[in-house]
Amino acid sequence: MSFPVALNDAALAVQARLDAALAGHDDLPVVAAMRYALQGGKRLRGFLVLESARLHGVAPAAAVSAAAAIEALHAYSLVHDDLPCMDDDDLRRGLPTVHVKWDEATAVLAGDALQTLAFELLADPALGPAEVRIALVASLAKASGAEGMVLGQALDIAAESAAVPLTLPEITRLQAGKTGALIRWSAEAGAVLGQADAGPLGRYATALGLAFQIADDILDVEGDAAKAGKRLQKDAEAGKATFVSLLGLEGAKDRAKALVTEAEAALAPYGAAAGTLIEAARFVIARES
Amino acid sequence: MSFPVALNDAALAVQARLDAALAGHDDLPVVAAMRYALQGGKRLRGFLVLESARLHGVAPAAAVSAAAAIEALHAYSLVHDDLPCMDDDDLRRGLPTVHVKWDEATAVLAGDALQTLAFELLADPALGPAEVRIALVASLAKASGAEGMVLGQALDIAAESAAVPLTLPEITRLQAGKTGALIRWSAEAGAVLGQADAGPLGRYATALGLAFQIADDILDVEGDAAKAGKRLQKDAEAGKATFVSLLGLEGAKDRAKALVTEAEAALAPYGAAAGTLIEAARFVIARES
Repeated sequence: MSFPVALNDAALAVQARLDAALAGHDDLPVVAAMRYALQGGKRLRGFLVLESARLHGVAPAAAVSAAAAIEALHAYSLVHDDLPCMDDDDLRRGLPTVHVKWDEATAVLAGDALQTLAFELLADPALGPAEVRIALVASLAKASGAEGMVLGQALDIAAESAAVPLTLPEITRLQAGKTGALIRWSAEAGAVLGQADAGPLGRYATALGLAFQIADDILDVEGDAAKAGKRLQKDAEAGKATFVSLLGLEGAKDRAKALVTEAEAALAPYGAAAGTLIEAARFVIARES
Repeated sequence: MSFPVALNDAALAVQARLDAALAGHDDLPVVAAMRYALQGGKRLRGFLVLESARLHGVAPAAAVSAAAAIEALHAYSLVHDDLPCMDDDDLRRGLPTVHVKWDEATAVLAGDALQTLAFELLADPALGPAEVRIALVASLAKASGAEGMVLGQALDIAAESAAVPLTLPEITRLQAGKTGALIRWSAEAGAVLGQADAGPLGRYATALGLAFQIADDILDVEGDAAKAGKRLQKDAEAGKATFVSLLGLEGAKDRAKALVTEAEAALAPYGAAAGTLIEAARFVIARES
């Protein structure tokens, strides 16, 4: 299956699972805000779960709750990152952010409940034996908490008030937490679901995650805000160190390409079956949003 | 064991487990804020886990991660509830709240990571078979998300801007979510850990949770802010409906006493072994903080 088709299929399956998870919930603003925050997006993380699962012979129906979980977790992080006390963004995926459309209290609560929803989804018996599900809970907690995504976010905040811009090793560590950890979890999830060695997918995703962030920094400089659906050129305005400021635009593009080659090489054990994941890696550095 | 001794033992065991969970973490403000938010408190929820576990022959070492999990979850909810956009409180457990001591961004992130920590703790293999641990994850997610604690919090926020004060059934539903769901999870956890019927403990905790909230409303009117370690008389100032405004002070006291009797009756199947939990229920309506 080609990557665009697989990505679209993943997006539809994930949305249906998320809709089902929130069906029957009380019709309060916080639930409306959760639904709103769960719309749209590329669903790259959900795709990585479903595609890595397929590589291990796990059908979409037996993996979609994990794909929905990582998208709920990702959505929570965006809602909270956009808050006035954090990045203070008013546009996300081309729409007003949750605290703009509702208010800050609703955004805090909706983000909180989206994180909870992620763990609830991982408990879904459709994902297989309890051992598999609790392993996914443990690894998602590790990837998203104070040693993973929140660590990256906290390093980012600390960097804003630092006297000197971050160095390349520092920014690499920041991004490994902020975006890398969830991307890695997504790609490894398929191996966990298939009770197989997650080594190759882990190496693939580590390279992919870094390429993704470098591409994000390039997009922040070269991108079209209308296509990206969010405010751009923020980093330069804020005087923040990025892969582009540290490596130069061409240097950053070369590094991203080298990482994609690295990601492809990691999937060699899977042979031709990994074609869609390889296409995904190429897409990540060519995307416009 | 008498209740005060059991509560103190539980507090020490829970604190040690939480300290261990955060040992080795990066020394960032967000981690310092997590440690800070995890200090103090009565540890009533953690006690309920350990004591209900003991009732089912589960040793403290095989239950303490669940007790620490519920205290981490509770701490997250307090940090976020205290935010300026929520209840805007500057004092908690006698100390400045997290956003006052650090800043709002740190409080949002520390709360987020404390929720994650709760689920990470439930994955601890010391809690027993994977089936038991994933059941605890599923039930905690249900109790704390948009059908539980967050629902209660959202109803509370909606009530603030409502034209008419809440009725007794409405406020009962609000509190069943806001405080009741986590108290119930705590008491039921011991039966889940012991792979036993959680029915009696569920009935005990439902009555206990409501008594707890009524006692809180009474404390808000009659309490000593220095002993409570937080601002009091907030509800009356805000013109909010409470069990005291709806039932009168004496009516609220009578209802709390009746609920404690109900809680005791629910534990009849356990006989004398439930003595400490019965003492706990009596304490809940007699406490000063």
